Amino acid sequence: MQLKEPQEVLLMGPGPSPVHPEVLHAMSWNTLGHLDPDFMEIMNQTTDLIRYVFETENQVTLPISGTGSAGMEAALVNMLEPGDKAIICVNGVFGTRMADVASRCGAEVIEVKAQWGSPIEYEDVKKALQANDNVKIVGIVHAETSTGVMQSLEPIVEVAHQYDALVIADTVTSLGGLPVKVDQRGLDVVYSGTQKCISCPPGLAPLTLNERALAAFKARKNAVQSWYLDLSMLTRYWGEERFYHHTAPVNMIYALFAALTLIKEEGLQARFDRHLLNSKALVKGFESLGLEMLTPETYRLPSLHAVKIPEGVNDTDVRGRLRKEHNIEIGGGLGPFKGNVWRVGLMGHGSQQANVERLLNSLAEVLQSLGHNCSGKEAIAAAEQVYKADS
Amino acid sequence: MQLKEPQEVLLMGPGPSPVHPEVLHAMSWNTLGHLDPDFMEIMNQTTDLIRYVFETENQVTLPISGTGSAGMEAALVNMLEPGDKAIICVNGVFGTRMADVASRCGAEVIEVKAQWGSPIEYEDVKKALQANDNVKIVGIVHAETSTGVMQSLEPIVEVAHQYDALVIADTVTSLGGLPVKVDQRGLDVVYSGTQKCISCPPGLAPLTLNERALAAFKARKNAVQSWYLDLSMLTRYWGEERFYHHTAPVNMIYALFAALTLIKEEGLQARFDRHLLNSKALVKGFESLGLEMLTPETYRLPSLHAVKIPEGVNDTDVRGRLRKEHNIEIGGGLGPFKGNVWRVGLMGHGSQQANVERLLNSLAEVLQSLGHNCSGKEAIAAAEQVYKADS
Repeated sequence: MQLKEPQEVLLMGPGPSPVHPEVLHAMSWNTLGHLDPDFMEIMNQTTDLIRYVFETENQVTLPISGTGSAGMEAALVNMLEPGDKAIICVNGVFGTRMADVASRCGAEVIEVKAQWGSPIEYEDVKKALQANDNVKIVGIVHAETSTGVMQSLEPIVEVAHQYDALVIADTVTSLGGLPVKVDQRGLDVVYSGTQKCISCPPGLAPLTLNERALAAFKARKNAVQSWYLDLSMLTRYWGEERFYHHTAPVNMIYALFAALTLIKEEGLQARFDRHLLNSKALVKGFESLGLEMLTPETYRLPSLHAVKIPEGVNDTDVRGRLRKEHNIEIGGGLGPFKGNVWRVGLMGHGSQQANVERLLNSLAEVLQSLGHNCSGKEAIAAAEQVYKADS
Repeated sequence: MQLKEPQEVLLMGPGPSPVHPEVLHAMSWNTLGHLDPDFMEIMNQTTDLIRYVFETENQVTLPISGTGSAGMEAALVNMLEPGDKAIICVNGVFGTRMADVASRCGAEVIEVKAQWGSPIEYEDVKKALQANDNVKIVGIVHAETSTGVMQSLEPIVEVAHQYDALVIADTVTSLGGLPVKVDQRGLDVVYSGTQKCISCPPGLAPLTLNERALAAFKARKNAVQSWYLDLSMLTRYWGEERFYHHTAPVNMIYALFAALTLIKEEGLQARFDRHLLNSKALVKGFESLGLEMLTPETYRLPSLHAVKIPEGVNDTDVRGRLRKEHNIEIGGGLGPFKGNVWRVGLMGHGSQQANVERLLNSLAEVLQSLGHNCSGKEAIAAAEQVYKADS
């Protein structure tokens, strides 16, 4: 067989993110049976590591056998039944998606909106809770990948719990890159994806539920509409019983195990600090290039940066040339930001000074050739000021 | 990082099956973005190869981002709406699962049963179609992994189409090991898994729909209850538009691409012949060991063999020792066959003379030590007769 491995591309878009060679290596380990004792040991260690990165002691903690959106669907189909009321906070693509998924569960969806690029206001959630009886869940995105907005979760959890609603949090673009703190924040159901700050290839969705969420799940009147994502069976496979449900994606779980082991070796705090530092340096570099960030620093994600495209510069031209001539992927805008912003990820293994500087230099080169007045050298110098100030 | 690769186990259970080293290698290729032009080229080639192995020209042909059971769920949630009538043929675990999934779609499920270990009778399907108006789909398992029964599909398709019902076929344990022939047989919706006769790690579910099924899909009144599996969006991502839906499991798709390339290099007919020959040899060997097959040759799968456990022999003792002392995995029975049968797979890359003989020898050794009178040498000789007769 003569298959050619694709050329490496530096992944600085909204995900997938660059994968550490040891994680790629673990993906190619010998496939074991999904009920094999050696594999079960890896399953145990993997769920322990997921708890570590979520900062939770929740017993029900497992990787869903699908990408991040399957994690979203798992959270919602297990918690919602037809007629349940769900407040969904919408300020970007993933809040919009959550509302769509919730409505497909037959839930009555109450949307709390904020402008794309802005966080959800606590007051608006409170008003929605006051205006609607018996809201079962409040769904909110911690890290909105479409806009780069970081959402403050504590006040939302507090008010939701006052009204006996459970909080479902989307941490796809935050887990492993910034604090999620499931237990400390009292988040009830939390899901993520593997291909962002975990730096594992896409294919799994870590999920965790606390006792409060589990009690609500156990009080369901109807079967979960998805057999594949039904936690009553998934927990029997991932729990002590090891009761066969579906064939787990064995090699993907190897990769997640390896990626999470790397995270634990680095330490969560060191990893969060690294993400923040590289993010600050990138932003300084962008500013030196004359680019403006979409979001102010107070609620800007360190993992995903939405940067405004300068007037007169063509979005796809620049991204196409970065990909073709510099082997770098960055993302385009979505929805109202299509053509207006680029989305630049610094996630997990990808959040490195070398990547920051390579992108600044390459982007400067492309922008210069399009007549935009900027200097890669100066941008790198601006970024290096940040690193120096930190050391 | 000091992670230890698990020791290789010869996978001769009901799946996952042994994975070719080149497929494992492809899994560890550099992760590309899910919208990267080089990845799109791999997507195109992969869907072409899925068509090749399904023997179909169906345009809607793609891998679902989940394991085989996600393929089952994708087929049913896209085809069924609340109140639709679904005839589901049940003669094992996977027919039972299909009925469960269909009922979670709100369908009125009419079960056509046969004893576990026997195929579904055409007459029973016909009676069910006569007795029920407006049946939308007939669901049937081509290769029942729980019993080793191969189902004849042609008569079922013929009668279903007479009554304007669509046929959904589960080919999880047949695709790539025995003829599925989607177009020739007129199968309307067909799904499979990657971890059986395709010999790719678990994690994807090839799916194909013909024009008739697509017309029924387009005539739906309600949104598909699963966002993740909704074909209206999946086909936009896998089609020419490449419209972002969810982040595809990029490295899993590399592996599927490699596994299908190997199949095409071997050729479907050669592969089917190989599966059949090794199966016949294994059965002769089992018979020489004094073991009896659950199913007669006429409807016995060449990929999965249910063999009766001799009286007085403890199921888990034998499987445990095969795993521990001989590094071989075989499967136990399910449902009524728990403790009564073993399930032995010869799937894809695993269907090899060397594996047949290694299992016969190892099983003989374990059985002998438990006081069962048999000879590994004679069993291998019996198997070799089959290979000689063929050459």
